[in-house]
Amino acid sequence: MKNSRMEEIGKVLSEAESILVFTHLNMDADAVGSSCALVREFRRLGKKSWVLFNDSETADNLRFLLGDLTTDDPSVIEKPDVCLAVDASETTRFPRVADKFLSGKIRIAVDHHEIKDTDWEYNYIDPSAGAAGELVLKLFDVMGITPERGSAEALFAAISSDTGNFQYNNTTKETFLSCARLCDFGIRPNAVSNALYECVKPEKLRLQSEAVSRMEFLLDGRIVMSCLTEEMYEKTGAVPNDGEGIVAELRSIKGVEVAVLLKEENGKTYGSFRAKNEANVRVFAELFGGGGHDKAAGCTIEHSMKEAYPLVREAAVRHFSKAFEEMEKAGESIGWNS
Amino acid sequence: MKNSRMEEIGKVLSEAESILVFTHLNMDADAVGSSCALVREFRRLGKKSWVLFNDSETADNLRFLLGDLTTDDPSVIEKPDVCLAVDASETTRFPRVADKFLSGKIRIAVDHHEIKDTDWEYNYIDPSAGAAGELVLKLFDVMGITPERGSAEALFAAISSDTGNFQYNNTTKETFLSCARLCDFGIRPNAVSNALYECVKPEKLRLQSEAVSRMEFLLDGRIVMSCLTEEMYEKTGAVPNDGEGIVAELRSIKGVEVAVLLKEENGKTYGSFRAKNEANVRVFAELFGGGGHDKAAGCTIEHSMKEAYPLVREAAVRHFSKAFEEMEKAGESIGWNS
Repeated sequence: MKNSRMEEIGKVLSEAESILVFTHLNMDADAVGSSCALVREFRRLGKKSWVLFNDSETADNLRFLLGDLTTDDPSVIEKPDVCLAVDASETTRFPRVADKFLSGKIRIAVDHHEIKDTDWEYNYIDPSAGAAGELVLKLFDVMGITPERGSAEALFAAISSDTGNFQYNNTTKETFLSCARLCDFGIRPNAVSNALYECVKPEKLRLQSEAVSRMEFLLDGRIVMSCLTEEMYEKTGAVPNDGEGIVAELRSIKGVEVAVLLKEENGKTYGSFRAKNEANVRVFAELFGGGGHDKAAGCTIEHSMKEAYPLVREAAVRHFSKAFEEMEKAGESIGWNS
Repeated sequence: MKNSRMEEIGKVLSEAESILVFTHLNMDADAVGSSCALVREFRRLGKKSWVLFNDSETADNLRFLLGDLTTDDPSVIEKPDVCLAVDASETTRFPRVADKFLSGKIRIAVDHHEIKDTDWEYNYIDPSAGAAGELVLKLFDVMGITPERGSAEALFAAISSDTGNFQYNNTTKETFLSCARLCDFGIRPNAVSNALYECVKPEKLRLQSEAVSRMEFLLDGRIVMSCLTEEMYEKTGAVPNDGEGIVAELRSIKGVEVAVLLKEENGKTYGSFRAKNEANVRVFAELFGGGGHDKAAGCTIEHSMKEAYPLVREAAVRHFSKAFEEMEKAGESIGWNS
């Protein structure tokens, strides 16, 4: 795949009369924020434009971004001049509406994920960008668009969220420069952050308390392990989705290098793993047929919690005692506070 | 008080041979990061320089910033050419070492807090800055200093922490531009953030779980109230200091406008209040002789928890039912998700 210049993409979009925007399933703030900002600005230019979501549900804390910009009805634009995928580039990332994307006269992808072999009419893939939102801002620049505050705030939501509030490794100089630009368009970081982060379900906090009460420390506290069981969902009124983010809370404990959280759902067990400094949980997840990133990975185990827990526990002790030993031999720093 | 130009302050500091740096008590990351970055760079210029802390203890998660830059011994420099207060300007903010500050041949304050009547030989007070760290970077610029990575990371810790990871209202364009500059000096946002935020004591998480298990919702869930009792410290192994931050977790609950957390310590009760969108908790704290900011305030109640809890509960219901009503009449937005 050869990257197009952003100017070429801007030109095609400027000339289009109808633009359908796509993003990936399991939408996060970057997916929703980037796609909604695009459609809002395309409409201001007088174009017919919608975000066509793959998913029918949007997370509660992202709904403030939607306005009337989104739909799940592929017939909303019969024959779009351009189909534009943002924060996604392969149709496997939006399977329900993949055919509609393919039907576009011109297909474009603007993404910051590494991709394998996608090659649309135009592609702008930059894995060094912290968020697709940064690329959308660049696109606005080349198109001469001064975004409305609502669009700018959607991009701020995208960027702040995908960089973990500027805490992840993908935070770059460009990330901060993008946000400085967004300030020119009147963003209110506090209002956006309240909307994104300050709407936690009480059931979720209660579920987290249960996970904390069950946590156990292995290998001198370098591994923390806990679980979410059907019984705990029942006790707290939470649903399995509320388990999102709890494994990161466990990782935040002092001295912890690896957090392991097992979640029970429909008789299966889902493993969720996080690493703090130098440890690699992707390799561990692969032991159970899973995968992911070095610092965040997961797997599915076709066993009940009762069977899966001791299996994973034993494997974690075995795998990481060796891994930690090798890290120490290699003299790898494992953080200032560890 | 008249502000000096940063260039004047830079000139005085460039000419000084010995500089003692001061910051406020109850040190946060801005206090420690800003003061340590200054001393590190002053020493690189060949000057004799120390941070003279008011406090003898530094929070665990800030120790990585200290190096050998700090002391609590006022005799470390007998007669400093310059005493420089950063993130603080009034001697009441560092009472234990106030006399030493006053003994400086030249006294300078660089601060982003509103001050009343301080007037040293040189003052640079900018309440619009998100953190003192932003002002220190500006000072480095006028002094022609290219900070080492360690100093730049100390300033990143200062800025990211004092702006609540760029989520508070004090986050400005200048904040982001400062961080973009710090990227030029090689900061690793992820490593700094891990050191700052990923060393939570397990006892603290357990204490939080207890607070969550006791929380009650008032006024249709717009107030959440909970407590931390001696009994809970005992059960979890936590100390009162571990209660820090728990009230913010409570505020993050969906629909909550005001979080009230009462903490028991030595027979007294400390109230900690947080507001989300338009509510004002300073006014509420003042009912109990306390104070603070509109969104974060507190008070001390000379009663046991058993007596204080129903008092505060009743006052909160009375005060905020009226306040919410007035806000609604005034048509004030209380956030996208409320």
